[in-house]
Amino acid sequence: MDEFRSIAELFAPMALPEGEGLRDDAAFLPSGPGRELVITADAVVEGVHFLAGTAPDLVARKLLRVNLSDLAAKAAEPFGYLLTVAWPESWAQAERAAFARGLAQDQAEFGIGLLGGDTVSTPGPMTAAVTALGYAPRAVRRSGAREGDLLVVSGAIGDGWLGLQAAKRELALGGDHLAALERRYALPEPRLELQALLRDHATAALDISDGLIADVAHLARASGVGIRLDLERTPLSPMGLAWLAGSPNRGDGLEALASGGDDYEILCTIPPERVAPAAAAAEAAGLSLTAVGTVREGSGPPLIRVDGAPHRFARGSFSHFA
Amino acid sequence: MDEFRSIAELFAPMALPEGEGLRDDAAFLPSGPGRELVITADAVVEGVHFLAGTAPDLVARKLLRVNLSDLAAKAAEPFGYLLTVAWPESWAQAERAAFARGLAQDQAEFGIGLLGGDTVSTPGPMTAAVTALGYAPRAVRRSGAREGDLLVVSGAIGDGWLGLQAAKRELALGGDHLAALERRYALPEPRLELQALLRDHATAALDISDGLIADVAHLARASGVGIRLDLERTPLSPMGLAWLAGSPNRGDGLEALASGGDDYEILCTIPPERVAPAAAAAEAAGLSLTAVGTVREGSGPPLIRVDGAPHRFARGSFSHFA
Repeated sequence: MDEFRSIAELFAPMALPEGEGLRDDAAFLPSGPGRELVITADAVVEGVHFLAGTAPDLVARKLLRVNLSDLAAKAAEPFGYLLTVAWPESWAQAERAAFARGLAQDQAEFGIGLLGGDTVSTPGPMTAAVTALGYAPRAVRRSGAREGDLLVVSGAIGDGWLGLQAAKRELALGGDHLAALERRYALPEPRLELQALLRDHATAALDISDGLIADVAHLARASGVGIRLDLERTPLSPMGLAWLAGSPNRGDGLEALASGGDDYEILCTIPPERVAPAAAAAEAAGLSLTAVGTVREGSGPPLIRVDGAPHRFARGSFSHFA
Repeated sequence: MDEFRSIAELFAPMALPEGEGLRDDAAFLPSGPGRELVITADAVVEGVHFLAGTAPDLVARKLLRVNLSDLAAKAAEPFGYLLTVAWPESWAQAERAAFARGLAQDQAEFGIGLLGGDTVSTPGPMTAAVTALGYAPRAVRRSGAREGDLLVVSGAIGDGWLGLQAAKRELALGGDHLAALERRYALPEPRLELQALLRDHATAALDISDGLIADVAHLARASGVGIRLDLERTPLSPMGLAWLAGSPNRGDGLEALASGGDDYEILCTIPPERVAPAAAAAEAAGLSLTAVGTVREGSGPPLIRVDGAPHRFARGSFSHFA
C-alpha cells in the first residue's frame, strides 16, 4: 500500500502518457501496425519479498513470474526481459548459478529470453528487478472499467497468503495442503492462457498481487468508477475453504484471504453481455471465472460487503488498503 | 569486471538475438519502419556506486544519466524510463522527495519521462535501477568494429575517477580543480549531442563506464577484433594533466586514469575516411574527438602501449581488466 501512495505522491506527476499516470502496472508503446509493446517492472528484496534462505532458483522463477503475471493481465504475449541483480557477498557462485538456472528453466517454460541488464554487488540483502516486455494486439488497461460491468476474478483467492504462512510454519492445516500452498506461494502461475479472453471481452484488468481488496481499489481509482465487492463470493480453493472453516469469524477470515496478496490471479471487468462467452473461453483454457461484484456509478472507495451487509474491517478501515 | 564475467558465464547463453549475446550495453528491438527501440538497464547501490550520504537528488540524476549515456553511445534519442527503487528505512519522506525532484529536474533537462516501475522497502542500503528506452534510426552496436578503423574517444578521460577521490577527500589538488572533479563524478554528461555523428560515421560504440582500458577490451571482444591502444594519446583535462604531472611514474599514472572508470565519454571506431567529417561534426557539437588507437587483425586481448612500447601493468596483468 505504501508503494501505491509513494508512487502517486512522488512520481505520478513525472509520468509520460504511455505510462498511464503510473496508475497501471505497465506502460504501453505503439509498436508497428496493430500492436502495442507492453512494459512492466517489479523488484524483490531478500527478507522482504522472499524469505531469507529460499532456494535461489525459486527466487528467480518467482521474480520472472510476477512480471509475466503483469503482462498476462494486460493481454500481452511475453517476449523478453532485462534483469538487474545486486548480489550479496553471502551468495557464492553456486547460488548465483542456481539463480541463473531458475531463470533458464522458466524462460523455456514461457518461451521468453533475456535482453540485457546489469549485475552489481551489495553489502545488503539480495535485491533484483526485472523489466518484462510483451506484445499485444489490444492491450487491456486498468482504466477501462465502465458502470454496469461485472467484476470477475480467475482461479482461487487467498492461497498465496496461506502459502506464505505455510512457508513460515505458522499454519495449522494438513500436510498435503501445506505443501500445495507453499508451492503456490513460491511459484505463482501467470495466467497467460487468459490473454485472448481479456483481449476479446475485458474492459479493464490487472493481476492480483497486493490482495483482492487493494487491487479492486486500484482498478476503481484508475478507471474513475465505484465498485461493489461481495466478499462472500470470493472463490476459494479447498485449502482456503478448510482454513476459513477454522476461522473464528467468517467476515474477518474472508477479509484476511482477500487482502493477503500474492495471488497472481486476474481481476477484470466484463460487460454483462460478454460474461457468457468469457466464461466459455475460460473453461476452454481450464480456468474458472467468478463474478465477485459490479462496477457502479461514482468514484469513491469500493463498497465492500459480506452477505449483503457492509463489511466491518477487522484491521482498521478500508483506507488501510488504498 | 566481475560483472562482465558473471554476465558472460551465467546469463549470455540465455540471451535473445535482440540482446546481442549480452555483449552490448543495450538491446535493440525493431520498432516501426526505419527505427529501432534501444533498451538499457543499470543499477546502483548506496555505498558501492555512490558514497553514503550523497544528496538524493544527485543520486537520482546520476542514475538517470548513466543510462542516458548508454543510449547516447547507441545513437539513440532517449524517450522514457522505468524505475525500481528499494528505499531503506533511513531515507525519510524528505529524502525520497529529493530523489524524485532530482529525477524531475533531469527529465526536464533531457526531455524524457517516467513510464512505470516499482517501489519497495529494504533493510539494506538504498538500491535503484533504471531501464531506459530510446529510438534510433540506425542504432550503433558494440559489435561493428572492423580492421583499419580508428579508435576514438570523446572529451577527456580520468576525471570521473579523480572526482571520486576528490569526493572522498583523498586527492591533493587545488580547490578549484577539486570542485570541478567532484561535480564531474557526481553528474556525468551523457554525450547525446554525438548521436548524429555516431549514426553517420561510427562502426561500433559504447560509453566508457568501466574505464577506457576495460571498455576497449569489451569493444574488441564484442566485435571479434584486435585493438591497439596508445595510452600516451589518452585525452586529459587540465586537472588530469596536473594530476599526471605529480604522478611518480607516467605509465602507471596513465594506466590509473585509463582504468578508473566513470568517464561516460564515448568510445567508438570510425573508418579512416570518415574521421575528418566526424571530427568536424564533433567540433560543431562543441566536443573534442581524439584518436587513441586502431583496430587490428586478430581477436586477442588489446595491445596496450605507452610511447610505442608495450605497457607493463602496475596492477598485475591485462586480465585484471577483461
